[in-house]
Parts: sequence; structure tokens; C-alpha cells
Amino acid sequence: MSIGFELTATDGGARRGRLSTAHGPIDTPAFMPVGTAGTVKAMHPDSVAQTGAQIILGNTYHLMLRPGAEQVAALGGLHRFMNWPGPILTDSGGFQVMSLSDLRTIDEQGVIFKSHLDGSKHQLTPERAVDIQRLLDATITMALDECTPFPATEDEADRSMMRSMRWAERCRTAFAPRPGYGLFGIVQGGVYPRLRAHSVTALATIGFDGYAIGGLAVGEGQATMFEVLGATVPSLPADHPRYLMGVGRPDDIVGAVRRGIDMFDCVMPTRSGRTGQAFVRGGTLNIRNAAHAASDRPLDAACRCPACRGYARGYLHHLFKANEMLGPMLLTWHNLQHYQDLMAELRQGIEAGRFEEVARRWEAAPLQPEEPG
Amino acid sequence: MSIGFELTATDGGARRGRLSTAHGPIDTPAFMPVGTAGTVKAMHPDSVAQTGAQIILGNTYHLMLRPGAEQVAALGGLHRFMNWPGPILTDSGGFQVMSLSDLRTIDEQGVIFKSHLDGSKHQLTPERAVDIQRLLDATITMALDECTPFPATEDEADRSMMRSMRWAERCRTAFAPRPGYGLFGIVQGGVYPRLRAHSVTALATIGFDGYAIGGLAVGEGQATMFEVLGATVPSLPADHPRYLMGVGRPDDIVGAVRRGIDMFDCVMPTRSGRTGQAFVRGGTLNIRNAAHAASDRPLDAACRCPACRGYARGYLHHLFKANEMLGPMLLTWHNLQHYQDLMAELRQGIEAGRFEEVARRWEAAPLQPEEPG
Repeated sequence: MSIGFELTATDGGARRGRLSTAHGPIDTPAFMPVGTAGTVKAMHPDSVAQTGAQIILGNTYHLMLRPGAEQVAALGGLHRFMNWPGPILTDSGGFQVMSLSDLRTIDEQGVIFKSHLDGSKHQLTPERAVDIQRLLDATITMALDECTPFPATEDEADRSMMRSMRWAERCRTAFAPRPGYGLFGIVQGGVYPRLRAHSVTALATIGFDGYAIGGLAVGEGQATMFEVLGATVPSLPADHPRYLMGVGRPDDIVGAVRRGIDMFDCVMPTRSGRTGQAFVRGGTLNIRNAAHAASDRPLDAACRCPACRGYARGYLHHLFKANEMLGPMLLTWHNLQHYQDLMAELRQGIEAGRFEEVARRWEAAPLQPEEPG
Repeated sequence: MSIGFELTATDGGARRGRLSTAHGPIDTPAFMPVGTAGTVKAMHPDSVAQTGAQIILGNTYHLMLRPGAEQVAALGGLHRFMNWPGPILTDSGGFQVMSLSDLRTIDEQGVIFKSHLDGSKHQLTPERAVDIQRLLDATITMALDECTPFPATEDEADRSMMRSMRWAERCRTAFAPRPGYGLFGIVQGGVYPRLRAHSVTALATIGFDGYAIGGLAVGEGQATMFEVLGATVPSLPADHPRYLMGVGRPDDIVGAVRRGIDMFDCVMPTRSGRTGQAFVRGGTLNIRNAAHAASDRPLDAACRCPACRGYARGYLHHLFKANEMLGPMLLTWHNLQHYQDLMAELRQGIEAGRFEEVARRWEAAPLQPEEPG
């Protein structure tokens, strides 16, 4: 395993760092746009890069089913396939198997499931998950874990976490180190500090390029999530990157960076963009709202994305009313820009020793109600 | 009226020219991508410009119903609304009224119809059509005509054409000339040379900035269309641009340029792109065809668009199978690039006195059957 990680500044618990990978550097704290099926939906990849994103996430579950990991490998790997030369982190497939597929059977060996696309039967084991991600040419491979349901009793969470730790060790054994490529382990343990602590120790003993926190943002609420982070993150190896999976809203990200998290991914900016919800400084707005029909204001005057530089809210409203593809294209771009601007400001804040000042700006008005056009 | 038109070269019947408008020049022969509802579907406007397109078409019918011509005017006109600073030609709305709306009643005054969107009642007269296009800030306004059904008897075509000529005169009267803005009349008369000749004379007597040929590409077939063009175009005023409405396939365009046409519009490249049909040198292909799934060839090795420079056919195939928006985005871009490349080569061919050599290249294999990936 050999992904470099250098910490360049800290401010309280917040960390400013840089990963070095075979496909380029990643400045942290970093947000990874989600490219589910080999595309960040509604975006040309060069537009994704223009927002400042350095790394994207690919979904192993979707890609293994269509077009298939072997097919992606035959076409040169995911970077070449989707024309994204930069770093790609792939998840293990476990989360989607457990949430999307039919008729799954989980045992110590792995999970057997039926594709939601065509009912075909597939097996995902720790070894196969690592192999699929190798075929995809993932810069960062994620260990296969069992996603503990929420809520779960401490006993359920314990058994599930212990299995994930055994799977993590099998992934570590299956993963063939290559320069600039890495493997991350995933901390589980539900909302139970004792289990999280055990999971951290187990993973650190095995040894990974980075450590992810899994099983959060599944309904426990922001306060509980922050509590778990506060109890877990400080004991993670400080010289490796920490990745909070599937999080979240801008204020979730700010709070997690404050607690020492370096990497994030979430479908929220892209998914919201496709339905007309825009993240703007000061809150969110739904561009489909009639209040915007006659507005000649930009979406967010402080934003430099094409949606904000080129168009009035009235036009964006029209695109969504008319079901024009350019609507999702522009709002996705804007939301991704908004998230990257957040990350850039957090990084600058940490460097300047003014993290809390930046944090307050972005936490000020999370998800405000609709403002008039 | 005051759109400049300069003929810079001819080769046989083919003409190389340049329009000068308030929103910039248009090199002819020119193809205008269709931006139905204030957007060229699935394209950012700067991408449309990157293909080489200098002018786009907007649909008055769609825009008058949603968001409304007054709304577009209040938001700065169509150029600002849709962030396309270049020339825009708007149709009169007549064609869509007659093909899309419910319960239309046509009489000498104009046409009354119900919106296909919400059933609301609207009237379109020659005067209102001109006024709507003024509100939209159209660079080139089209006269309202009655679209003669096909097939039509000579008598039916005669009566319809004569009404269109009376409407053309009313449009000419209603149109307030502005520097760099223009009004085009539309030749009707079905497939009857006598009627077409009468229509040409009537329009030339009224006097327009340009002359369009309407009522073709409606089912009469390419041979008949070319016959009508051959009998009609030579008598059009030579010092004004000629626009063949709603045409067409690349070989239609080549044949029409040979007969003296300067301007074209068609939904074919954009609509085909959204369904997975690509125009390539040598024919067309449907990227959804399983033959392309494992192909690492570009769509068209001779094309410089992002779809051809960045991706293998296997990836584009995957995007369409997965219903990913990037599929229509890339194929639309490619098809528009293909059409603009055609126009650029035709222009160069005319300038170099080698039009027929270029024409043969593009006519060689119109709409070939699927080629393997």
C-alpha cells in the first residue's frame, strides 16, 4: 500500500492535508462528487474538474452489474472509460447490495444477491470486492464491510462490526499493493463508542492507507453523528486520511471537519440539482418555486459557476418547468461548485488559523426556508 | 429592414456568403441548431458555439406559451434569457400551431388555438406573430404563413399560398425595421411550380431581408423536394439569403446547397442524439446497438468533438443503456459538430471552386445501415 498523506496545517481538530496518488494529488478536506455508473450525472468530466474537484467516487455495485468490471477493464479501466484522469475512489459495493438488490443472503463468506437490473445472481466477497476494484483501476479501494442496520442493539452492532473486521483483514490480504494506489478500512460499531473504539484498534492493527467511518448518516441525526465522531476520530492514526462516508449537507461537513475528518462524498449536490434544489450561501432554494419565475437575480451572486454567471433565476425556473435537460445540467454544476467552494474555504481557513470564522459563515443558516426570488 | 448579405463566392449553383446582423455575422451556407424552448436541448450554449454554430433557431410557439413572450422580454430578451449572444432566428409559430395545438380555427384574420400545455386559448395573427418575435428580440423574424398540408390539390395549395402572401404583406407592414434585424418571407405553393413562381414574385414585390422556402420536407420525398428547389430558387432575388426550413439530413443539405440554398435548420441532429443515433462520416449508427458494447473505437475518428476525443463507443453505449444524461449530452454535441463540419467543408469547397468534390464526400453514403463497432 502506498498512498502518501501529508498534514500541512491544523486548527483545533481540523486538518489541512494532501494525498499523493498515482492519478494526482488530493487536497484535504476534500469533497468527492459521486459518479455512480461511470458518470457524475448531468456533468461533462471536465466541468467536474473545473469546479475544483480532484477526486470522484465510483459505485462498485452499479459498475459490476453494468457494464461489468471485466468490461471496464477491457476498455482501459474506469479512468479511461469515463475520461476522468484524476483519482477515483470506489466503494466496495456492500452498501448498495444491502439497500438496492433483491434476495440477499449474507454469511461469513460474503453476500449473494440478485441484480436489481435483470435478476441475475452475483456474489460479493471481500476478495471479489477487492478484485472488482482492481479491475476498475480504483485509485482508492474500499474494504467490504457489512452495513449495520440502524437502529441496531449493541449486541447486533457488535456481531456485525466483528464480521466487518474479519472481512477487512481478508481485503487487506487480497489487496496487491501498487505505488500510488491505496486501500481504506471502514470503522463500524453503530452509535456505540466501545464498539467504535474496538473497530479502530482492529483496523489500525491490520494497517490501511486510510480510515473511513461507515454506518453514519443513516438516520441517527446530526447530534449523534457528531458524538460518534468526537468519540472515534481522535483515536484514528493521525498520519492517515479519514473519510466520513456518505456525508452530507454543508453544515454536516463543517462539523465533521472540525472533528478531524479529511474526506467526504455525498449524492446530495448532484441529486438535489437534478430536482431543482440549489444550495446557495445562506440556505437552499427550490428553483421550481413560482417565486423565481420572474426573477432576474442569479442563483447565488457569490458563485462563479456557469449557472450563476450566465443566467437569471427566471430562466432556470423555466428550464425546470419545461423539463429541459439544461436545468439539471446547470443546477448540478452549481451545487458541485458550491460544495467545492465550501471545501476550498475550509482549507484556506485551516491554513490561516481561522477555521472557526469560516465555519460560522457556512453554518450560519443551514437549509433555510425558501427565500423569495 | 437591414440585415446585410454579401455573396463572396459561387460554384455552380452553390453560394458562399455572409450575413451581417446586430448580433454578429453568419457565414453561409449555415446550419442553425434548434433551440425550441430557449435551449438547444442537452447543450450548454458555449458548447453550441464551440461546434461552430453562429446562429440558432427559437420556436415562437413554445416560447409564447411558456414562459411567454412578455416574460422573455422582461428578462432581457431571448439572447440574454438563454445566454446566447449571437444571432437568433425565430419561426412564426404557425407550423407548431398547426401541428401541436388543439382546436385550431384558421381564418383570414389568423389562427385561434388551445395550448397543448394547459388548454389556454391563444390567437396568432400576422401582426401578433411579428410582435411576439419583437418581444423575444429575434435577430431574424419569420413571417406568419399558413402551412399547406401535404398532399394538397393544386387548388388547395393555391388558396393556402395566396392567404400566406396576404399574411406576408401584413407582417411586412407590422415589422418595424431596426439596424441589424431582419424579416424573412416564406415561399409556399406546395409541389406546384406555377404556384411557387407566383409566391416568389409576390414576396419579392413586397420585399424582405431574406426568402425562406416553406412547406417542403413534409413527406414529398427528396427527389420532389429537389425538383421544387430547382424550379423555385433561381427566381429568388440573388442578393438576399435563402433559407430552406426544417431540412434535413446531410445529403438533403448538400443537394439544397447545390441548388442555391444558404440557410438550414432541423431538429434531426439534436433529436437523434438524444435517442442514441449518431451521424458519422459514412452514414449513421445507433450507439445502443449491442455491437458497440465492447468497442474501444471513437464514434468518428475524423471528428474533434468531446464525444469523439474523450470516449470509446463502448462507454457511450453504456451511458445509453444506463439512461445516463451524459449520453444524450455527448451524442447531441457530436451530431451538432458533424453538421457544422459539413457546413464548414461546403463553404470551403465553394470558396475553392471544388464544391462537387466536397459534396460527393458527404453524399457518398447517406444513412448507411449499422456498421459493426
